Amino acid sequence: MAVLTKTILPSYVGGRWWIPETPQKVVDVTDASTGEVVAQVSTDGLDVASAVEYGRTVGQRSLGEFTIHERALKLKELAQHLTAHKQELYELSYATGSTLKDHFLDVDGGIGTLFIFSTKGRAELPNAHTIVDGAVEQLSKDGSFLGEHLYTRLPGVAVQINAFNFPVWGMLEKFAPAFLAGVPSIVKPATPTGYVTEACVRLMIESGILPEGSLQLISGSARDLLDPLDYRDHVAFTGSAATARTLREHDNVVNGGVHFTAETDSLNAAILGPDATPDTPEFEAFVKAVFTEITAKAGQKCTAIRRVIVPHERVEDVVAAVAQRVQERVVIGDPRTEGVTMGALASKEQQNEVRKAVQSLVDAGGTVRLGGPEALLELPGAETGAFFPVTLLSFDDPETPEVHSVEAFGPVTSVLGYTDVDDAVRLAVRGGGSLVATVCTNDGPTAARIAAGLGAHHGRMHFLNRQDAKSSTGHGSPMPHLVHGGPGRAGGGEELGGVRGVKHYMQRTAIQGSPDTLTAVTGVWHRGAAANTVTRQDVENGTGEHPFRKSLETLRIGDQLASDLRTVTLEDITAFAEKTGDTFYAHTDEEAATANPFFPRRVAHGYLLVAWAAGLFVEPAPGPVLANYGLENLRFITPVTYDDAIRVTLTAKQITPRVTDEYGEVRWDAVLHNQKDEVVATYDVLTLVAKTWPTA
Amino acid sequence: MAVLTKTILPSYVGGRWWIPETPQKVVDVTDASTGEVVAQVSTDGLDVASAVEYGRTVGQRSLGEFTIHERALKLKELAQHLTAHKQELYELSYATGSTLKDHFLDVDGGIGTLFIFSTKGRAELPNAHTIVDGAVEQLSKDGSFLGEHLYTRLPGVAVQINAFNFPVWGMLEKFAPAFLAGVPSIVKPATPTGYVTEACVRLMIESGILPEGSLQLISGSARDLLDPLDYRDHVAFTGSAATARTLREHDNVVNGGVHFTAETDSLNAAILGPDATPDTPEFEAFVKAVFTEITAKAGQKCTAIRRVIVPHERVEDVVAAVAQRVQERVVIGDPRTEGVTMGALASKEQQNEVRKAVQSLVDAGGTVRLGGPEALLELPGAETGAFFPVTLLSFDDPETPEVHSVEAFGPVTSVLGYTDVDDAVRLAVRGGGSLVATVCTNDGPTAARIAAGLGAHHGRMHFLNRQDAKSSTGHGSPMPHLVHGGPGRAGGGEELGGVRGVKHYMQRTAIQGSPDTLTAVTGVWHRGAAANTVTRQDVENGTGEHPFRKSLETLRIGDQLASDLRTVTLEDITAFAEKTGDTFYAHTDEEAATANPFFPRRVAHGYLLVAWAAGLFVEPAPGPVLANYGLENLRFITPVTYDDAIRVTLTAKQITPRVTDEYGEVRWDAVLHNQKDEVVATYDVLTLVAKTWPTA
Repeated sequence: MAVLTKTILPSYVGGRWWIPETPQKVVDVTDASTGEVVAQVSTDGLDVASAVEYGRTVGQRSLGEFTIHERALKLKELAQHLTAHKQELYELSYATGSTLKDHFLDVDGGIGTLFIFSTKGRAELPNAHTIVDGAVEQLSKDGSFLGEHLYTRLPGVAVQINAFNFPVWGMLEKFAPAFLAGVPSIVKPATPTGYVTEACVRLMIESGILPEGSLQLISGSARDLLDPLDYRDHVAFTGSAATARTLREHDNVVNGGVHFTAETDSLNAAILGPDATPDTPEFEAFVKAVFTEITAKAGQKCTAIRRVIVPHERVEDVVAAVAQRVQERVVIGDPRTEGVTMGALASKEQQNEVRKAVQSLVDAGGTVRLGGPEALLELPGAETGAFFPVTLLSFDDPETPEVHSVEAFGPVTSVLGYTDVDDAVRLAVRGGGSLVATVCTNDGPTAARIAAGLGAHHGRMHFLNRQDAKSSTGHGSPMPHLVHGGPGRAGGGEELGGVRGVKHYMQRTAIQGSPDTLTAVTGVWHRGAAANTVTRQDVENGTGEHPFRKSLETLRIGDQLASDLRTVTLEDITAFAEKTGDTFYAHTDEEAATANPFFPRRVAHGYLLVAWAAGLFVEPAPGPVLANYGLENLRFITPVTYDDAIRVTLTAKQITPRVTDEYGEVRWDAVLHNQKDEVVATYDVLTLVAKTWPTA
Repeated sequence: MAVLTKTILPSYVGGRWWIPETPQKVVDVTDASTGEVVAQVSTDGLDVASAVEYGRTVGQRSLGEFTIHERALKLKELAQHLTAHKQELYELSYATGSTLKDHFLDVDGGIGTLFIFSTKGRAELPNAHTIVDGAVEQLSKDGSFLGEHLYTRLPGVAVQINAFNFPVWGMLEKFAPAFLAGVPSIVKPATPTGYVTEACVRLMIESGILPEGSLQLISGSARDLLDPLDYRDHVAFTGSAATARTLREHDNVVNGGVHFTAETDSLNAAILGPDATPDTPEFEAFVKAVFTEITAKAGQKCTAIRRVIVPHERVEDVVAAVAQRVQERVVIGDPRTEGVTMGALASKEQQNEVRKAVQSLVDAGGTVRLGGPEALLELPGAETGAFFPVTLLSFDDPETPEVHSVEAFGPVTSVLGYTDVDDAVRLAVRGGGSLVATVCTNDGPTAARIAAGLGAHHGRMHFLNRQDAKSSTGHGSPMPHLVHGGPGRAGGGEELGGVRGVKHYMQRTAIQGSPDTLTAVTGVWHRGAAANTVTRQDVENGTGEHPFRKSLETLRIGDQLASDLRTVTLEDITAFAEKTGDTFYAHTDEEAATANPFFPRRVAHGYLLVAWAAGLFVEPAPGPVLANYGLENLRFITPVTYDDAIRVTLTAKQITPRVTDEYGEVRWDAVLHNQKDEVVATYDVLTLVAKTWPTA
């Protein structure tokens, strides 16, 4: 175990480590298993307003020097750095009551989130400072007035108030998207486990990877944390509904326009489908899921399953199967002790809270089927350490209000019986909005019916059947790719979700203007904007350079090649049909083609047009354009029949240099016209282009 | 003018028209120009909780019987019905002080919003009950566990609290997206102009187009309107910041999870670029924009320009030009009077509010350059009617706090001087978050710099230059295609934005499961899910039906054709290069192709592969598949060199029957494999397929 000196845990604000000079109020933080003091916490005299101002100025400026891809790469470097040092975080984390397996969820889960955001940032976002959202809207008939949406980073700070159960993941899952968006973070961990967060922040700062001011840490309470905030800032809170309430009532949230999101505990349900009888893989998956969710992190997960909703006739089967698994597998104790499979709750306060919550469930009519307050009295070490027995309750009356509203934030769950699928949905909805529900069924229509009923009440739904029972990432694990959060009791917020999470730290703005203005504002070329046009003749005469001969060093958006017309003959269409095998009647049968509502007579294949267009724009010799890796948004607009001619205009639309390769992506706008200047087809050509290329 | 009887304005709740039986508190609503009583308003005894429950039950049920496209079509029918009756709404609207031109903004603007949402709903959303959001996330290596996002409508009601300035548009811009999402609306218009809303709702109800319970109206005050709401419900408010505050502090918003969005007045800016000297088209466009925004609806638009930010040396030019235009064009009076170009404010209260606001701007140091409180005293009819003179102020000190915080909600604006572009941005930001800013510049870098500085502080930015000055839809007009709302003072909300606006009335839920489950839940086929596979042999033997022979009556998602392998020869590649003209070296030059980092040696053209794939899957004879209208998301994954072979698997992925045509869209999942079963390419093929087809 790492040595923890009994000094006050530092904060990191204004670019330096900070501890109070004359602390008045100091809180002792104890080891969850042994009760020993492992850290002391005080923020007396910490100047929150200065930290916010530092983030808004220095943090914004330094983060703004990097593009989204550059920041994404830094996330990967951070993840690698933390991976190299994760053992240190494991060692510290034992004091929180967590087992090694729990550390994987927190430490490795946090690092994995950095990796995924790094990958997604580079794969799915532009290498730029802003993000275009959705399609261009043509707002005038002549195309001279367009509308579009643009995401710009929030101009303030991202205040992140985290819960005690995930001192590493809880920070990193909020930090990663904020950092990627370019918004500086101010992290305030929960006091009982803040020393783990402090160690993680220390590793991150010491890595030297972070731009100045992009991450600050407040180790301890900060009641005035929201006082300096306004509409430029963002607060993401994870924790109890009661604290969320207090924050949400802050005048700067109600009236000041602070962006506020909350993720609070919820009474998540697991539903056993009527088809999932005890002999099915779905039943087994269900029991495993319930077991995992009440024992991992000793049930201290906001996503844990609190309500086990099963057919009435399966209540006893499920109670027996879960209880058996617990008895076979759970050894409660100090997680540093060999053989222990479930550690302590985070603190004695939590132990007391959970005991009270279980008691109120019992008082409301719950029957203890395993564990419970009496078992707590007999649990070895539970007087010193914050241990709690795995507790299973059942309710004769599934309508009991308390089972749908009282959350015991520990290894506790309740089993309820339902009559039919609609009844199961109704019971699950009584949770008043939840983070996640698991449904075990191998029946598609049952899954669809439950999804339709529960979707609007949940942030996530997790379906298990025999296909994915083994490969599932689990009920309790929010994935960085998917949104996390839920309506109502779950806090009404939304985090993560891949690039969706990044956009939470940005403002979406409608931009209206001419094609030239939108090109200038977005950095993406818009059809109708000025172009640097080169014809085939220019290329041949040496009076213009083919855009395909330009590396990323010289290629600019708006660089354009305009081809000559090429006539399509009936022989071309016939030959293409024969060669490709695409003898669809529209290309081969004059009478049938003419009868088709969309074609004048036999027409050229769409793929003939696209292939010919490539022939019309391509520059054959080796050059910086390395490959065509795809095509998007192809629409055939005007049919081309024989004796029509086509020409293509190809324009560099978006340039995305990769930060880790010697090439980048270039998206080209392609428009095909016919001899009457009608638009035949439009699409985007996706190519890889070298960053440099020797000039001839 | 329509005859308005002095009876109490009815509400429409619980499926019937309602007036109080024994009204206690009755408010008189007067004609803005004449002061005559035009309506009386009272909601004494109205049971709001029952209306909410009626919406949640009857409204949800009846709207749920229709798909998104069916609801979209109803919006079009409503728009047509209102168009046929718009003269009635015009007639009534004169009493609000609006001119005919103003009616166009309100009545025609509202109807136009219905049309656009109808079009967008059918063009951009599935013909289904839910909306898939974004790409599938593969969460396990073997593809058996996937993640995806799904939008489901909110299960409650959409309460819409509107402002007095747009009694028709204000209702319809909220109603249209809520209706499309499938959420019943409860509309509460502002009392001073609620009789116009009532007339519009009456037309909508009488049309018989609306599903039962999809629209309710509360004509008058409803202080307890939020009391029955919870996280299932949505409140969209437009009006003053003070009222927004009160609503946002309601316990059901703070703690109950009610979805709440606000759009409040803001101190919108117009910035004249340094390049826009008085001889430029941009200067002219700027003066016109300012003029229009302070005179249309007598300046009673939350989007109106309140701060005119121009280079210091242009202040006098701009004041003179705007003043001249006002003097030449503005005739204030009863809008029913011939020759009147600007009507009255909505009420005497508003007239008094505006007078006070102007006075406080003057007291803070503003100089009246036109109009103002003294001109008000001399304005004919201003004692009886709520008229107000067009008022132009200038400020020696552009930092004056009041000019950035006091809103005079009438024909009033202030001119401020800036030193350079960054100073202009800084001044605009002092508005503390705005709905919209207009920027007049013909210089791309200036536009980009201002957009970067103002984006995060604005919901919309409107750029004018010589290209779009004539075609622009104007600073003050939110377009249904684009988001409306803004951060900070503007309320922090977001409305409209095309399908974005629909999603505001839906919950986004992450769905995790096997390909089969995701297929069942979303109604969209997922790669890896069960398929109804037919081979070419099956088709030839008559043991299977080619999916292209199925009309929408019999085609089901998962219907799949699996082709045989076809070998690509070097001759094929060479011939394709010659025929198409695509002689890119990767296809024609063995040495250069081998040197390319992505290719083993000469490779087949991507378009050859796609064309051959069509040959492999096509069914040539006339049948229900009418046309291939496009292709999406094509990615070339493994290069195909000569002597490789390819095969294609084509699967019906999504079926979108059109509600107004005899065909629909079918999206096919196409996967190309090589002889080693490696994936060569993936894409979606878009086709039009007949709803019915005679069987042979």
